[in-house]
Amino acid sequence: MNTVSSVRLNIISAIYGNLPKEVNITKIEFEGPEIAVYVRNPSVLADKGEIVKKIAKDIKKRIVIKADEKARKDKKETEEIIRNLVPKEAEIVNIKFDDELGEVLIKAKKPGLVIGKGGTLQNKIFYETYWRPVIVREPPIKSRTIDSILTHIYNETEYHAKILKVFGERIHRELLFKDRYVRITALGGFYEVGRSAVLVETPESKILLDVGLNPSVTGGEKFYPRIDIDQVRLEDIDAVVVTHAHLDHCGMVPLLFKYGYNGPVYTTAPTRDIMALMQLDALDVAEKEGRPTPYTAKEVRKELLHTITLDYEEVTDIAPDVKLTFYNAGHIIGSAMAHLHIGEGTHNIVYTGDFKYAKTKLLDKANDEFLRVDTMIMETTYGAQEQEGREEAEEKLINIINGTLNRGGRVLIPVLAVGRGQEIMLVLNEAMKNKKIPEVPIYVTGLVDEITAIHNAYPEMLSREVREAILYKDENPFTSEFFHRIEGFREDIAQGEPSIILATSGMLNGGPAVEFFKTMAPDSKNSIIFVSYQAEGTLGRKVRDGVKEIQIIDRDGRVENIRIEMEVNHVEGFSGHSDRRQLLYYLRNLSAKPRNLVLNHGEPNAIESFRRQVEREKEKLGLRGTKIYTPQILDSLRLV
Amino acid sequence: MNTVSSVRLNIISAIYGNLPKEVNITKIEFEGPEIAVYVRNPSVLADKGEIVKKIAKDIKKRIVIKADEKARKDKKETEEIIRNLVPKEAEIVNIKFDDELGEVLIKAKKPGLVIGKGGTLQNKIFYETYWRPVIVREPPIKSRTIDSILTHIYNETEYHAKILKVFGERIHRELLFKDRYVRITALGGFYEVGRSAVLVETPESKILLDVGLNPSVTGGEKFYPRIDIDQVRLEDIDAVVVTHAHLDHCGMVPLLFKYGYNGPVYTTAPTRDIMALMQLDALDVAEKEGRPTPYTAKEVRKELLHTITLDYEEVTDIAPDVKLTFYNAGHIIGSAMAHLHIGEGTHNIVYTGDFKYAKTKLLDKANDEFLRVDTMIMETTYGAQEQEGREEAEEKLINIINGTLNRGGRVLIPVLAVGRGQEIMLVLNEAMKNKKIPEVPIYVTGLVDEITAIHNAYPEMLSREVREAILYKDENPFTSEFFHRIEGFREDIAQGEPSIILATSGMLNGGPAVEFFKTMAPDSKNSIIFVSYQAEGTLGRKVRDGVKEIQIIDRDGRVENIRIEMEVNHVEGFSGHSDRRQLLYYLRNLSAKPRNLVLNHGEPNAIESFRRQVEREKEKLGLRGTKIYTPQILDSLRLV
Repeated sequence: MNTVSSVRLNIISAIYGNLPKEVNITKIEFEGPEIAVYVRNPSVLADKGEIVKKIAKDIKKRIVIKADEKARKDKKETEEIIRNLVPKEAEIVNIKFDDELGEVLIKAKKPGLVIGKGGTLQNKIFYETYWRPVIVREPPIKSRTIDSILTHIYNETEYHAKILKVFGERIHRELLFKDRYVRITALGGFYEVGRSAVLVETPESKILLDVGLNPSVTGGEKFYPRIDIDQVRLEDIDAVVVTHAHLDHCGMVPLLFKYGYNGPVYTTAPTRDIMALMQLDALDVAEKEGRPTPYTAKEVRKELLHTITLDYEEVTDIAPDVKLTFYNAGHIIGSAMAHLHIGEGTHNIVYTGDFKYAKTKLLDKANDEFLRVDTMIMETTYGAQEQEGREEAEEKLINIINGTLNRGGRVLIPVLAVGRGQEIMLVLNEAMKNKKIPEVPIYVTGLVDEITAIHNAYPEMLSREVREAILYKDENPFTSEFFHRIEGFREDIAQGEPSIILATSGMLNGGPAVEFFKTMAPDSKNSIIFVSYQAEGTLGRKVRDGVKEIQIIDRDGRVENIRIEMEVNHVEGFSGHSDRRQLLYYLRNLSAKPRNLVLNHGEPNAIESFRRQVEREKEKLGLRGTKIYTPQILDSLRLV
Repeated sequence: MNTVSSVRLNIISAIYGNLPKEVNITKIEFEGPEIAVYVRNPSVLADKGEIVKKIAKDIKKRIVIKADEKARKDKKETEEIIRNLVPKEAEIVNIKFDDELGEVLIKAKKPGLVIGKGGTLQNKIFYETYWRPVIVREPPIKSRTIDSILTHIYNETEYHAKILKVFGERIHRELLFKDRYVRITALGGFYEVGRSAVLVETPESKILLDVGLNPSVTGGEKFYPRIDIDQVRLEDIDAVVVTHAHLDHCGMVPLLFKYGYNGPVYTTAPTRDIMALMQLDALDVAEKEGRPTPYTAKEVRKELLHTITLDYEEVTDIAPDVKLTFYNAGHIIGSAMAHLHIGEGTHNIVYTGDFKYAKTKLLDKANDEFLRVDTMIMETTYGAQEQEGREEAEEKLINIINGTLNRGGRVLIPVLAVGRGQEIMLVLNEAMKNKKIPEVPIYVTGLVDEITAIHNAYPEMLSREVREAILYKDENPFTSEFFHRIEGFREDIAQGEPSIILATSGMLNGGPAVEFFKTMAPDSKNSIIFVSYQAEGTLGRKVRDGVKEIQIIDRDGRVENIRIEMEVNHVEGFSGHSDRRQLLYYLRNLSAKPRNLVLNHGEPNAIESFRRQVEREKEKLGLRGTKIYTPQILDSLRLV
């Protein structure tokens, strides 16, 4: 027998006490952070939406009214009603039912038309069928990832509903301790870039912010964040929060499930999709190279069933004393800053994750408005470095491309599948459209393609210009005629006519980019252009740093000597990270100034140099009272 | 079945391989940090002691040869042999047997005569009886504490032997982790004085350095160090190390046993005895005042059976990757600095505990020679303050006493039962002997008396002068005719003829000192002289700070208003703590300079002020490369 805690009792009383009796509540379920009220007569509430809103506001919880199973219309009938109500132009491609949660998934090419103005049509669907509509966009470029994720979740509705209830009961458990403290512990990504992970600890709860891998190694102890210490007991972790889909921030989340973690993962919808894709791809690559993998696809599938997606600026209870709110971080699609509100205002932490404090073609700039920040954990990747401005960077890129094409060479741009790839596509598309570079084929290979499809599923998360081009102008830059999608490596292209090749991975530590590099490097007509950060220890870093010859062990174990004759360039202005100036602007412009500023996600010289800079400019930045911390891995800081 | 680990296998092989076969080894036991080799024919080794020493040196372990049970002589016969071998002047008072460990306890007034020159007689006793002699001093003032501790341990030989084996197996377990880290976590006594506790953590082991209580409160969360956090799991703690017997360093050790700790406590012999006495006394006082106690006498008794006493400068394995060595700290009798040697030289920590870097009448000054120190955790109680010099302090004390006695007043000196009490006794005894103060009665009350008896049991731990006076000159200053021992409070003395009263507790937070103070305070002829540190929140602190009226709630719950008319003085030069200058000298004179200096055990202004001072004088102190840390409670620092 479950005992109902008084926290939950209070919520239940508020709902019973304030809903009209005639709705006939049949059960109240704590489904993750949401409170689902199942009723026999939802129609009673059809024009009384404000009652539910008021209760939600009073008890500061997310309440969803659902119809009792017995009240819901037959599925076939429901499908007919939906198809009749929704205009043809919405182009519904799929309808699926979740019996457990009483939801109907409607996938459409124009989801806005299913939602209706201000949600009116969505509402109508509910009151005419008693199924709660969940509306999803079918992107113009088909995404296999999203399809298989949704199929997986809708195949496991029973497990999914059950686990949500487990989360819900845990989130709404009783507060046990009178005493208050808040500690953070550096588990990875401090004084280094890679394997990001932070433990946030209160007497009541424990939360992991990111659980990444170290991209500069493929195994050994430095591959993992320090989730092995006793302080991190997986059964005590209340929530894992993932700020974006790069593997250095999410690559070890499935490992938690392998070792028995059974709790939720909070992230945005695009991060969920891309994260799963990146994890599965990493498994593929490791398998092909005969390396052991820290987890298998089974754990990725479990992770997906345990993931709860949140929108930006949606306040969510994730533990009895912690509320999480995501804000746009401008780094890649779906990237988020995590704001943790602890206790009744005991402490507010902002963990920036990776962020860009400047507008890019792809994304809006990172959020700088918070009601309260006591401690800010801030990335410092480029804390020691100023990048070119955007326009300068574009000009430089265009010049290098023109120079190379003019001498009959080919341009290799290694790109991170996520973010930089799409940004460079937008830049190249515009430049070619405006005749700033000659019209040669732009080959896109590796994961970039599938990731681009996912971008198209979430246009509302992209910059205004791109969003509008996709949604209203039917001028989708990602489907432009200049782009040619290819599979993996193609020798004919590497040695063929002048062209531009966008290939993953961005640090030359895997993917078709490595094959292209090996073939193209000895030809001095060619160019390679790095457009993203190159971590210590990666092949990309060595090449960028000017090494003239490189030994590569191929898949058969043979050592190849590669002479690098091609032109090597890097254009940093496209970075998804803020440079030193942008980091400083960010601190200056923050609406609320932190008492503690914790610098992470930077190599030692970046962190030290940025720390000194901030110390010097404290007054100017409005940080007079702020303490600056630069913890090492396994340092813990008590914040309260 | 126990499996024998390869660590233990290697030790066993080395012993079997190097001892002559004829000794006939019957078993090898891991008895705590010692390896006991039980043999049928010990006589084979009678003149081959160097073989055993060589093995011990080779495998870096403490080896003890014991006789197999069957080989040992009958107890009655053994007792006779001992009494015949030992000269009468040794004055044996007691002989007890431990069948489990094959030891015979010989208590004598002159233990040196039982040991014999270079241990020859002790050795002879073993080879003639096949019982290992353990020799203990019967002090000239009888100590009930020591008697009852030894009786307790010798009543529980079976449990004691069993638990030592449990410790032994745990200490000599396999190393499991390739990876190395060392972290310390501040659990109490950081940015404050009281509830000292530090957690030292490696992947292999966890050690608690001190587990004290906060003397300025009697309950509530600030009473305890933060041993309640998840990081401190009692079943994972390998060892508790107690640096000295003041309750702010050891007052919560029994609580660990209450909550399931089952491991060893390492400390010096006088610390063990005084610690138990102080803990039991605190229980008594709480009971009389009707306060709940965090533990009971049962846990103190368990603690005693789990305590392993070490001499200064004796290197001891306390965990598979940690060796502990104690050094004289000069603070009170038995007080130690704890040196932890971690891994094969991975890291060396010195935790100073409370220390005095100056010679006192009672003790030698703290040790400043270490082979290696990477991290020093140093107390900073007087980091912001310079005390009078010793001679100045004595003069001041004598002047105040003379002034008071001359005007017909009485002098109250609240003393910590341990340390300051004995030091002041030595000063007063000398001054009176030399006629610097008139011959009035010196009343000694409270715990001081019993503690003084314990001092007499361990003269080897006192300063050279006192040691020699006790051992060779029969001029024991503690038994001087000037001292009058009384029980508790005596109104006739408080209001009687001019006299000097030494009474516990030193901070007026309990003990007969409070009663004397209440009676003596309103008379302006009287004086009170504080000679030790007064913690924030104690009555002593308020009085020292010059409050003119005080409300005291007596044992019946009545509020009494006490007007303070007496002369209030404090003489800090007797402190058992180093003052700012001594702390700086200590750093300058250290034979090995730490890379990390962690300041603790000080109020915030003491720590901050001392930190700045050290920063300023880094060059001069030879600490150019040293990083200074001032952690807060619940901060963790990674050292390696």
